[in-house]
Amino acid sequence: MTTDTLPGAGLIAELRPEARNAPESGIVEVMNHGRLRPGLIPLWVGEGDLPTPEFIMRAAMKSLADGETFYTWQRGIPELREALARYHTRLYGQPFSAERFFVTGSGMQSVQIAVRMIAGPGDELIIPTPAWPNFVAAIEVGGAKAVCVPMDLDQGRFTLDLDKLAAAITSRTRALIVNSPANPTGWTATRDEMAALLALARKHGIWIIADEIYGRFVYNGEARAASFHDVMDEDDRVLFLQTFSKNWAMTGWRMGWIEAPPVFGQIIENLIQYSTSGSPVFIQRAGVAALDEGEAFVAEQIARAAEGRRIVFEGLKATNRVSLSAPDGAFYQFFSVDGRTESRKLAVELCDTANVGLAPGTAFGPGGETGLRLCFARKASDLTEAVARLQRALAA
Amino acid sequence: MTTDTLPGAGLIAELRPEARNAPESGIVEVMNHGRLRPGLIPLWVGEGDLPTPEFIMRAAMKSLADGETFYTWQRGIPELREALARYHTRLYGQPFSAERFFVTGSGMQSVQIAVRMIAGPGDELIIPTPAWPNFVAAIEVGGAKAVCVPMDLDQGRFTLDLDKLAAAITSRTRALIVNSPANPTGWTATRDEMAALLALARKHGIWIIADEIYGRFVYNGEARAASFHDVMDEDDRVLFLQTFSKNWAMTGWRMGWIEAPPVFGQIIENLIQYSTSGSPVFIQRAGVAALDEGEAFVAEQIARAAEGRRIVFEGLKATNRVSLSAPDGAFYQFFSVDGRTESRKLAVELCDTANVGLAPGTAFGPGGETGLRLCFARKASDLTEAVARLQRALAA
Repeated sequence: MTTDTLPGAGLIAELRPEARNAPESGIVEVMNHGRLRPGLIPLWVGEGDLPTPEFIMRAAMKSLADGETFYTWQRGIPELREALARYHTRLYGQPFSAERFFVTGSGMQSVQIAVRMIAGPGDELIIPTPAWPNFVAAIEVGGAKAVCVPMDLDQGRFTLDLDKLAAAITSRTRALIVNSPANPTGWTATRDEMAALLALARKHGIWIIADEIYGRFVYNGEARAASFHDVMDEDDRVLFLQTFSKNWAMTGWRMGWIEAPPVFGQIIENLIQYSTSGSPVFIQRAGVAALDEGEAFVAEQIARAAEGRRIVFEGLKATNRVSLSAPDGAFYQFFSVDGRTESRKLAVELCDTANVGLAPGTAFGPGGETGLRLCFARKASDLTEAVARLQRALAA
Repeated sequence: MTTDTLPGAGLIAELRPEARNAPESGIVEVMNHGRLRPGLIPLWVGEGDLPTPEFIMRAAMKSLADGETFYTWQRGIPELREALARYHTRLYGQPFSAERFFVTGSGMQSVQIAVRMIAGPGDELIIPTPAWPNFVAAIEVGGAKAVCVPMDLDQGRFTLDLDKLAAAITSRTRALIVNSPANPTGWTATRDEMAALLALARKHGIWIIADEIYGRFVYNGEARAASFHDVMDEDDRVLFLQTFSKNWAMTGWRMGWIEAPPVFGQIIENLIQYSTSGSPVFIQRAGVAALDEGEAFVAEQIARAAEGRRIVFEGLKATNRVSLSAPDGAFYQFFSVDGRTESRKLAVELCDTANVGLAPGTAFGPGGETGLRLCFARKASDLTEAVARLQRALAA
């Protein structure tokens, strides 16, 4: 990026360092290299290829036609909070109150608000890596420090060493960030690991920020991954960050939620008020439709992802040039290519040689630098073609 | 708010003080008292009574029907940035580049991002008050300090004393916040005042955060209020915060923009990426329609507000119980009732006695504590009735 010659270039030095130094997304950087290539198969972002289902769109259109275009509840419309409670009650097999749910303008905003609630300058948050880069960036833009704990990697399989995590806790630690199933690694905590993580947080009096947005995408025949809901008490220090993006193909709608003890209601309302002042009612109506009527679509998405996972894992394994393990959850295949350690360079190269868009491991922090992330939430024919292209490119 | 007995009440003490102490909106507090009263005329929030015009809604619906439900550009879709450039070129009579515009998830998010760009702990931002409370709250949630400079008040008319403003500048000052036309006072800077404010900022090397969202709502026969655009150079330290909410009756859509030197493009993109990750394409399509085809509607809104202003000013003046001045801009009448200094108590009382919802001056910071704010962006019959009720209640 050359900005030195633009008017006002000198002004950049006058911005707050945390803003000035926020990193450009390492994924977008590769996308900018390849996005105009004709026929490129884009597997670089965490987004499927299906548009939002029509029954969800119709709910938004009806709301618009009804003139629901005014300010609304900062915590979310009561109907959506009730629908969230019903959804959680079904999924986790225990009762949930609507008072635990707060509608946000994306999973990303849920992260921002959670970080604002608990950490500022001088505070540390621990995050196992490789991880979704926006966590670390959001923490550091807010003036706090992200402490990355690299996961162990053996034959393409990532595991979390709880002793290493415990050793990273200091008097400044405010929270553990636990993303399970994980982006980009596919690591999925067992119920015992969830219990151990909670015990660690309890012992040190710190928070868990739980990102379980891929919780429905598991490949062991279960209906969902283990959750902190399975092991926690109602008033444990756990904040859940969630999104409508993945389960219901609503990435472009920008809506998520926070689940938190109801006692934080006014505080979360205030943080929403002073950041985006709430979400459009017509988008929230779409969310109600998704939660109440979306199970068949979610099942279809999971079945598609399972097929995509098989195609990609088998196809890449057959190259005999890669190190990888079939992911337990989420919808990414993380892999490294033998003898290639510069993933940014490799991702750029594969745009040109394979016409396939992948995310470089460098984007995800310590522990994943040599890998590549491939999103397999896509139709089988695209994935089959992408894998064939990668096979040819890697054989060359 | 009694939360002491809820599960997890003890956890509140473990939140970051800036989050814990963020104030509840003083407007919402009164709304919570009166919102369920049958027949109450709600003039407490900054929102008109017209739903979004149909041509704007249709643009969103078409986009949804076209399947535009995926992630998009973090800075905003190119078509909307181009439409913003055209709109500004028309309105200010000078050329604008699309590269100056960044789409946000509300005027409020524009505030949050602007504050994040330039101020953190240890920094001060100066704001003339009474002012929209969300400015001060956003600054303080971000860890910076809002320095309020009360405006002068004489016979219901607010004026800004530049010497007082200059005296508040210290080595920690990072910006002046200038809202003109102003909420809640209606104060509207002249072109000379704009030039003087810019000169002051230049002299001290500080920023101006310009909130000109009510710039179309003036009542002197001009097409718009004076703007920093009339007096600044392209690379001056000015950040403009804007919203689609007021001109186009889109409060519930949550979309705004930042106008800034293009050299900040990557930094603003990053701050959007790490807070909400962009705005829905279908909402942005609605924004294009609003900008390109919305002039007749904006003219209708301004004419309605002018009539509302007349009804409210004359009606309140006739009580002989109030101190007020007809506002030069925006769509609020700020007034105080003789002998009544507790505006929060008075606003609550007027819910009960007049069945009219007003915002208490206490919500707007130093200098406005004794006043009330009435939004007159509403149909004449409602305003006539509201004024009649207020006349009776104040005569009692």
